[in-house]
Amino acid sequence: MAEKKLVEQITAMDEDFAKWYTDIVKKADLIDYSSVKGCMIIRPYGYAIWENIQRILDTRFKETGVENVYMPMFIPESLLTKEKEHVEGFAPEVAWVTMGGSERLAERLCVRPTSETLFCEHYANIIKSYRDLPKVYNQWCSVVRWEKTTRPFLRSREFLWQEGHTMHRTAEEAEARTVQMLNVYADFFEKSLCIPVLKGQKTDKEKFAGAKATYTVEALMHDGKALQGGTSHNFGCDFAKAFGIQFLDSDNQLKPCYQTSWGVSTRMIGGIIMTHGDDSGLVLPPDVAPIQAVVIPVQQHKEGVLEGAQRIYDTLKAAGIRVKLDDSDQSPGWKFSEYEMKGVPLRIEIGPRDLAEEKCVIVRRDNRQKSFVAIADLVAEANKNLSDLAEALYNKALENRKNRTYTASTLEELVTIANEKNGYIRAMWCGDLECELKLKEAADVSSRCIPFGEEACGDKCVCCGREAKKLVYWGKAY
Amino acid sequence: MAEKKLVEQITAMDEDFAKWYTDIVKKADLIDYSSVKGCMIIRPYGYAIWENIQRILDTRFKETGVENVYMPMFIPESLLTKEKEHVEGFAPEVAWVTMGGSERLAERLCVRPTSETLFCEHYANIIKSYRDLPKVYNQWCSVVRWEKTTRPFLRSREFLWQEGHTMHRTAEEAEARTVQMLNVYADFFEKSLCIPVLKGQKTDKEKFAGAKATYTVEALMHDGKALQGGTSHNFGCDFAKAFGIQFLDSDNQLKPCYQTSWGVSTRMIGGIIMTHGDDSGLVLPPDVAPIQAVVIPVQQHKEGVLEGAQRIYDTLKAAGIRVKLDDSDQSPGWKFSEYEMKGVPLRIEIGPRDLAEEKCVIVRRDNRQKSFVAIADLVAEANKNLSDLAEALYNKALENRKNRTYTASTLEELVTIANEKNGYIRAMWCGDLECELKLKEAADVSSRCIPFGEEACGDKCVCCGREAKKLVYWGKAY
Repeated sequence: MAEKKLVEQITAMDEDFAKWYTDIVKKADLIDYSSVKGCMIIRPYGYAIWENIQRILDTRFKETGVENVYMPMFIPESLLTKEKEHVEGFAPEVAWVTMGGSERLAERLCVRPTSETLFCEHYANIIKSYRDLPKVYNQWCSVVRWEKTTRPFLRSREFLWQEGHTMHRTAEEAEARTVQMLNVYADFFEKSLCIPVLKGQKTDKEKFAGAKATYTVEALMHDGKALQGGTSHNFGCDFAKAFGIQFLDSDNQLKPCYQTSWGVSTRMIGGIIMTHGDDSGLVLPPDVAPIQAVVIPVQQHKEGVLEGAQRIYDTLKAAGIRVKLDDSDQSPGWKFSEYEMKGVPLRIEIGPRDLAEEKCVIVRRDNRQKSFVAIADLVAEANKNLSDLAEALYNKALENRKNRTYTASTLEELVTIANEKNGYIRAMWCGDLECELKLKEAADVSSRCIPFGEEACGDKCVCCGREAKKLVYWGKAY
Repeated sequence: MAEKKLVEQITAMDEDFAKWYTDIVKKADLIDYSSVKGCMIIRPYGYAIWENIQRILDTRFKETGVENVYMPMFIPESLLTKEKEHVEGFAPEVAWVTMGGSERLAERLCVRPTSETLFCEHYANIIKSYRDLPKVYNQWCSVVRWEKTTRPFLRSREFLWQEGHTMHRTAEEAEARTVQMLNVYADFFEKSLCIPVLKGQKTDKEKFAGAKATYTVEALMHDGKALQGGTSHNFGCDFAKAFGIQFLDSDNQLKPCYQTSWGVSTRMIGGIIMTHGDDSGLVLPPDVAPIQAVVIPVQQHKEGVLEGAQRIYDTLKAAGIRVKLDDSDQSPGWKFSEYEMKGVPLRIEIGPRDLAEEKCVIVRRDNRQKSFVAIADLVAEANKNLSDLAEALYNKALENRKNRTYTASTLEELVTIANEKNGYIRAMWCGDLECELKLKEAADVSSRCIPFGEEACGDKCVCCGREAKKLVYWGKAY
């Protein structure tokens, strides 16, 4: 009964996906709203997911030679406007500080929407010789973009992210770093978040303001809409020229540096929700779940049950599993639905009968599959259930993407698919901006990416019929 | 020669302590300046110190039940002004956002100088019953205070910190948490930063805007000036009343919550520099040093030397020591002074002769003491040297504080001491604001704290001669 009641509190996915999403972020205690419009409070349970994400990614970054730094959160207007394409992309959506205390500032400062300009100014100061290269810096911070419509994790005026900014001696090295970080992201999405991603390049229209090339990892949500998961940009040396970042090479020539930047954000938490969640709530991939297993005693007033539960807790904890014991006075049914809502991967039940047989029950969050497990085998069984669940989450998401990937060879066909279904639409493109705009207008979809290493599905542009060499994935996006 | 040259680049401490300080923060690559006035760039070496501080403190916090969250960086003016004393303390020194994109905001937003108001608004939403208490939240973030004069780490317009904000059922519990966190700070200062601290209470004049009581850990720098290291505040229930944070107690009565907050910041890095540094540069306490030992091969072109150095590196790394091997083509002399400047606790030298004897040389940064160590004993000897160095740093700082602590029984005496020396001046105080102001004016010092558990040094107020029960430490402060 208690279970029923709690589950009824969230909207069904099929009924209203958007409402289902906002119900989950609130009911799973991920976020709260405040009087600061368009910003969110990330609550302990949501923030613990972010801490796990940070820990895993930060370790991977450092393995590739990344060093962390902290730049000011403000950018003077004159600095922001130093690179033309960049400022055109960002100036319309920044927050401006105009007063310090009771004094009007001589020059207004924007709250960083991204920090290319600050990193470039710093690099110009500290890079003198080829011996100073490469520089591979990153920062974990919050950024601000003054969005008109906002949604928790997906689009908010302030969000948390990491931004890597690097400088290199050659174009080849910069390109290699751009791809390397894209691969770190792709690997993280697939292995730690259990989210399959497409790797590819953005069209010029969709690339980052000021970049030569933007690479992206794109994920498909349960409802068939796409989510840009993370991006890695190759800037060439335009910023370096604008900011005077040059080095004396071993041949005694002054040369400009080659630059990259790359970032992922709390948006990924939105991606986790919309990829794995169900009508009972959140479903968390084990690598980032704040609690990987919850131990729930059944008939806990009976002799030995709480002790047994405690023993299970101690065993799992000693094995390095993030575990919680809930021995509160709520009913087991209430607890079952509470931890389902919170997406805890495994529930471990123990009652008097289990105890007598030196057993317990492991229930998987994703498919509710129950296993009766000898307590002696608990750690191995829990770890097996966690990895099986991770694999199942990934496979389910991959299946969803396969089922929702379509191919169109004419514009008419593409428009029909776009009108009837949510998902990726594969189509050939000649490379002209005009065709991209026409298609976007006709089908109300945007180009997601030109995927790496995928075969063409034709040789004519879906839009103009001319020769086309580029395969593009189109879709509606968050 | 190389060593000499590098060392000459920094000002001597005794010549100009302020210049010595800024020389070190720059030459040890801790910070850089940018075009953002009053803000600093924390460079990789400086940020790595902060990451070590964060890791240690965050672990200690969590052991006491702290949960991390993230609040918006903006505070609407109406929210900031909800608690009268608080806004009077902070409004004059905040940065105001007045524009979002090209639109003027209906209500201006300040960039958080501290987040009591945001936490209170959130707590009012989520606390309903005594079962919801206590709430023990913390966030790691940056805050902004529009200071007129700034110095790296010590006072900058933006700085990094943690701010804990808690809500409790009873006044006793809130007081216990206030003291508990002060003790966590004191312990961290003494054990991890090797900085002895005074624990005590701020006078009403010096307490936090809106607090009932502010407790502080105060450290004395090498030059005899004081540094407020961290503070812990008991708010009683004034904010809770202003924000309507109340809970239904088990006796069915609605009651206001009792509140605390506590914080430490990147200021601590300034404290490390000014407590332990010397004329050769930084000296870092082992717990927070990014590199605990640097391995420097001598005559590295000779057969076996680099391999020997690599073996030492591998051995120390496997033992969990943060170690770096510098096999660059700079001279050993250059390397010696470079890592002295950076304050690396241990230098390990290995040359052909050492190698032949299966030995190496460990040199301590603080006193340059050399030990010739059998490679077989390396890990044990390195760990012993690290803990001996930590103890020596602490003792030296304690000795400095003892030598610079004075006692005054008349105002005249106090003024004379203050004019002639930098250090703590102990004196009795009646508790009246008027006397505090008079003394501050006459001697150009401020009250640092009323220390816990220290015996009185008289029974008359140093200022007015009336009965006095409070012992106060006075001093010039950063």
